[in-house]
Amino acid sequence: MIAHKIVPNISVDCVVFGFDFEKLNVLLVERELKDEKSGEVIIRDHTLAGYHIFEDEDLDSAAGRILKGLTGLDNIFLEQFGAFGQLDRVSSPRDKRWLDYINKGFADRIVTVGYLALIDNTKVTLRLKERNVSWFPVSMVKEMDLAFDHKYLFYEALEALQRKVKVEPIAFELLPDYFTLSQLQKVYEAVLGTSFDKRNFRKKVAQMHYVIALKKKQQGVAHKPAQYYLFSREVYEKTRKGRISFII
Amino acid sequence: MIAHKIVPNISVDCVVFGFDFEKLNVLLVERELKDEKSGEVIIRDHTLAGYHIFEDEDLDSAAGRILKGLTGLDNIFLEQFGAFGQLDRVSSPRDKRWLDYINKGFADRIVTVGYLALIDNTKVTLRLKERNVSWFPVSMVKEMDLAFDHKYLFYEALEALQRKVKVEPIAFELLPDYFTLSQLQKVYEAVLGTSFDKRNFRKKVAQMHYVIALKKKQQGVAHKPAQYYLFSREVYEKTRKGRISFII
Repeated sequence: MIAHKIVPNISVDCVVFGFDFEKLNVLLVERELKDEKSGEVIIRDHTLAGYHIFEDEDLDSAAGRILKGLTGLDNIFLEQFGAFGQLDRVSSPRDKRWLDYINKGFADRIVTVGYLALIDNTKVTLRLKERNVSWFPVSMVKEMDLAFDHKYLFYEALEALQRKVKVEPIAFELLPDYFTLSQLQKVYEAVLGTSFDKRNFRKKVAQMHYVIALKKKQQGVAHKPAQYYLFSREVYEKTRKGRISFII
Repeated sequence: MIAHKIVPNISVDCVVFGFDFEKLNVLLVERELKDEKSGEVIIRDHTLAGYHIFEDEDLDSAAGRILKGLTGLDNIFLEQFGAFGQLDRVSSPRDKRWLDYINKGFADRIVTVGYLALIDNTKVTLRLKERNVSWFPVSMVKEMDLAFDHKYLFYEALEALQRKVKVEPIAFELLPDYFTLSQLQKVYEAVLGTSFDKRNFRKKVAQMHYVIALKKKQQGVAHKPAQYYLFSREVYEKTRKGRISFII
């Protein structure tokens, strides 16, 4: 294995959102520090999935590497939502103590680039390495006290997701290739934290010519099997072109 | 004056767009290097408005400081459009030569955070310091060969502007407080590189309840004086709330 040199003052942090057909979840990594003698827990909290960039990789590669390590997946939807460089972002007593403990040569001041990642989390097997990695419901993350400025980054990513989901076809990244209209409605509701009238929602979807009905239906369900649909990027790109639409 | 220590491997670069009632322009800074003996020009090209961040300032402050220095203005509309860390972004022979020449202790590898800035450029007086700063029409910038990866940053910023102008009320940042509907149409046309039918455009605007007609009219113009309008953020925020709109 080649040892990569880290850039001490530049990192990437990924806010990984996953959908489990019911609710929106976020991937968090446990941070634990115990007193060597007494075994007493000094720090136990969570961080986003992040690390320093290496000297020999660009920002997107760094984010991809981290996600691949945690989920085993390539080709995850990944988009920057901001760069963060507040002077005090890693300097709380608890964060300083942690950085001293891991002692990896990080700088006192670290600028981080935030990445929004979207996954159908039912198809991910998390890889537990030295530290615990788990999915937490968004509603629970809002109540948690995350490391560094990661709570702020989480909210920034959630806002970016809510803004983007209204104007770009990214909700489909949270679903499997085939999905039912109920699942599509649930993903919009989970992201936007609201509920839609079923009939109005279906009217909207009927206008989305890029959501295409398949012959395939659900199997092995107790209720009446629902029709499956897919998202066609090709149709999306075609029907979007030349259309003058701004939000009023 | 306090001497600030720069961070050698982190910079900000601002793509400053200005509108002059006719076309969209970009602020560029001249980069010139002459041979000391012969006086022959070795490098003459342009960069975006950027510099390294200081150890004691955050990213937004760095961008604000640079723009204040060039335009004298505070409170410029300023928003990140991405962070850029390609391995070769400052390492072309010409760029290396320039960095050697200015010899300010920059790193070989620099990650930059891109800021999109919007100004009504008719109200800006550019401050010429050691280097020339000027407005260039967007159409001309497309034909120019900028320093570093700044041409790429320019296109990324232009795309971000075109995407945002359709879904957020940012076109108004390019206009004075009072504007005519022709001016509003021109700014959308200049940003999107298209032309709209006047009647259809006015129908759209009629639905934007936050574009408010004033009693005030143009003065001292040869043609029939046009009505002035203003953008009300308050009305925008109010009418936006609770509305479920996604782009179909």
